[in-house]
Amino acid sequence: MLTYTFAHGEKKPLYEQLTDFIKMDISTGVVPAGTKLPSKRAFAEHLGISTITVETAYQQLIAEGYIHSVPRSGYYVSDIDPNRSGLSAASKQKAPAMISEEPEKQNKWMIDFSGNETAPDTFPFQTWAKLIREVLSGQTKELVKTSPGIGIRSLREAIATHLYHFRGMNVDPGCIIIGAGTEYLYGLLIQLLGFDRTYGVEDPGHQKIPMIYEQNGVLCRHLSIKEPGITPEMLEQEHVDILHISPAHHFPTGRVMPIRQRLSLLKWASEGKDRYIIEDDYDSEFRMVGQPIPSLLASDHSGKVIYMNTFTKTLVSTVRISYMVLPRKLMQLFRERLSFYSCTVSNFEQYTLAAFLEKGYFEKHLNRMRTYYHNKRDRILKLLTESPLAPSLRITEADAGLHFLLLLDMNMTDQSFTDLLAAEGIRITPLSDYYHDPSDAPEHIFIVNYSSLSEEHLPDAAEKMAQLLRKE
Amino acid sequence: MLTYTFAHGEKKPLYEQLTDFIKMDISTGVVPAGTKLPSKRAFAEHLGISTITVETAYQQLIAEGYIHSVPRSGYYVSDIDPNRSGLSAASKQKAPAMISEEPEKQNKWMIDFSGNETAPDTFPFQTWAKLIREVLSGQTKELVKTSPGIGIRSLREAIATHLYHFRGMNVDPGCIIIGAGTEYLYGLLIQLLGFDRTYGVEDPGHQKIPMIYEQNGVLCRHLSIKEPGITPEMLEQEHVDILHISPAHHFPTGRVMPIRQRLSLLKWASEGKDRYIIEDDYDSEFRMVGQPIPSLLASDHSGKVIYMNTFTKTLVSTVRISYMVLPRKLMQLFRERLSFYSCTVSNFEQYTLAAFLEKGYFEKHLNRMRTYYHNKRDRILKLLTESPLAPSLRITEADAGLHFLLLLDMNMTDQSFTDLLAAEGIRITPLSDYYHDPSDAPEHIFIVNYSSLSEEHLPDAAEKMAQLLRKE
Repeated sequence: MLTYTFAHGEKKPLYEQLTDFIKMDISTGVVPAGTKLPSKRAFAEHLGISTITVETAYQQLIAEGYIHSVPRSGYYVSDIDPNRSGLSAASKQKAPAMISEEPEKQNKWMIDFSGNETAPDTFPFQTWAKLIREVLSGQTKELVKTSPGIGIRSLREAIATHLYHFRGMNVDPGCIIIGAGTEYLYGLLIQLLGFDRTYGVEDPGHQKIPMIYEQNGVLCRHLSIKEPGITPEMLEQEHVDILHISPAHHFPTGRVMPIRQRLSLLKWASEGKDRYIIEDDYDSEFRMVGQPIPSLLASDHSGKVIYMNTFTKTLVSTVRISYMVLPRKLMQLFRERLSFYSCTVSNFEQYTLAAFLEKGYFEKHLNRMRTYYHNKRDRILKLLTESPLAPSLRITEADAGLHFLLLLDMNMTDQSFTDLLAAEGIRITPLSDYYHDPSDAPEHIFIVNYSSLSEEHLPDAAEKMAQLLRKE
Repeated sequence: MLTYTFAHGEKKPLYEQLTDFIKMDISTGVVPAGTKLPSKRAFAEHLGISTITVETAYQQLIAEGYIHSVPRSGYYVSDIDPNRSGLSAASKQKAPAMISEEPEKQNKWMIDFSGNETAPDTFPFQTWAKLIREVLSGQTKELVKTSPGIGIRSLREAIATHLYHFRGMNVDPGCIIIGAGTEYLYGLLIQLLGFDRTYGVEDPGHQKIPMIYEQNGVLCRHLSIKEPGITPEMLEQEHVDILHISPAHHFPTGRVMPIRQRLSLLKWASEGKDRYIIEDDYDSEFRMVGQPIPSLLASDHSGKVIYMNTFTKTLVSTVRISYMVLPRKLMQLFRERLSFYSCTVSNFEQYTLAAFLEKGYFEKHLNRMRTYYHNKRDRILKLLTESPLAPSLRITEADAGLHFLLLLDMNMTDQSFTDLLAAEGIRITPLSDYYHDPSDAPEHIFIVNYSSLSEEHLPDAAEKMAQLLRKE
């Protein structure tokens, strides 16, 4: 009879040890298929354990398919692998874990002009903590109740109210969809609008947007925004169905789309059944001069604009809450086809953000952040224009958003310059990196994302840049 | 000269009022393209306002493209629309918002056998609140630092440790990807594995899984699990590349995949370069009898199993945190192609969950929940077997997970029965609803998801069902 030695001091219960012993013997072929196992009583006596222990082990082995019972006969070993590969499937002890050298991005830079995190000390931790506490103690029932796929109603209403007061937009909360980041929402949009459509993006532009389209296997056209900008003729020539733009503040040029072009693009969209414009309004809140630029959606009378915005820029980049506003017709389609998806933002954070908006904290936060960024931008501009780099430098597009452009008077290539700077611990991205078509790219223009820029190291960095230019 | 009347009592600043007046006149064609605007000084005198106000309004109009300045000449109205459509693009006052009747799912059921929320009173609110508080006060720097796309390291390490102790799995934290729900992760997987692959799902099975594949436009084969179950021959015949299964606990039949079949599927996968198995281990934690069933991944020696699991079942359905473990080769591909995606779970919740796991709360919670569900299941089974429904009822597959099957002795169709029950406020889903091929579907079997089932109304519901069956 099968004989096993149990480790009585071990934590593993006896029935589990027995199960593993038998599994091992079956897996390795020691006990071949068809073998009749001892009766529970006999086996228990033989091993000096209780019948219950053997019974439990046999039940587990049946559940996993190692053995089967034949009524009025007994337990038999099943044929687990006709090709008997000798796999020790039952063994929990595999080779020791190989911990990969994971290339986590370490921030080794002395100063990083390309970072786009929010400044750590600006997030209203105390308010947020207070609201979470209130939500956790007061809304426990709602918190565990499945949220509608498009997000909880109160958050969508709070967003609609914010858009009305802040952007002059009349938006139906029933047409708002909450999601864990705009990247996720783009994926949803592709499913909604179609994998067989052609998407057009601005060139230059955010690098991630075409990457998302490409990874989703859809056609993506890079449309040059150089004068006269994207035109209806260009869109027709490229057979674009869906145009993806940032009219209020183009990244990285900072350009505001003029009203004439807006109207012509709206007209283009209204002339095709399947044409839509995705308006990415990602940092319109941070216009530093004058009024906010009106949204394209506010001028859309044909239901052709899909509006997108995010709290990752205005609140903190690590709370992943974004939203989009669909035209009524698309919302209907969404409800029919995609409403089975669960909302990707946890209820806890949806309710907290809703309270943050409803109680006026968001508006206060935005005002504070505008002042904060305004001052920071001014200090940085002052530092730069008083640095040794000043004679070689021109600043452009500093009116809006959380970046501006630095035009440097130099001869070396952008690549050589950034490589030399990288060796000094300075990271900066040339504008040309954002061009799909490099022949279109202007040289010697660099992007300064200043939201999380370290002012402490800025004079040093400017000095290093000036040195490099002097050496030319 | 243009003359406007300002509302001095209004909140809107003068420059904004002036901007809007001019915009309106330009948009409606009252002031045609090419018109020279008054000089700032003259206009200011004429209107009785300051030059600064006019200057600010003109700058805003330039930014938005309504007017342009000609050096040494003045400001001119731009040609905003050659077709002059009469759109009042500038007007913020649009038609009043039409609030749609949003069909939010209201829970109108007296009792719902199909709900799969977690029980509201089981979520450890106090512990969670304590951990959030600690995270918010102690880790402010980490909280605003962008998380790696695959999730924060400490959470991935905590998950690997959990899988080791709880499921006997050796998993490299560098191969774990955190995401906001398994649905999101499936979408990522399709991008990783390819839109041109053929995906195979179990029939019957979770309804959402084929919906996700279909909405992503990929080929999806429904594979019957009736004896002998999914075989390598079937997969080859259907040209399946990626097989999506729940071997530890099939939904809705509750079946455990026997070791013989597991090994044959692993062998199938190992024989094709692009073949993979997605193992959806969604509620393996809630096996009520014996040991947990080993994961398929634990038997995988060829790097062919993608393991998926979620905290939405074990913790609470409204905190959206799931994860997958990729084979090393796929992880490499993910890093190359998809690591640009931001993680969809907020840092706040990632750090809180990491602490919840690290400090042993999750293990305690799981043990408590197993006891809770075990007792709840026993009470429900007792209630049913002592109810007037008892003579017509058989319970199957009650060993595992958070549902069991109810086989009813009846003649009417599943549809008639569920319709009649719905009229009484009782919602129950027949097993046949989960079959893609209705001809395969057994009749008169119903699914009882008991995790959030109201025991209070169960006797009533059983009585109603018994009445319906008596009336036949």
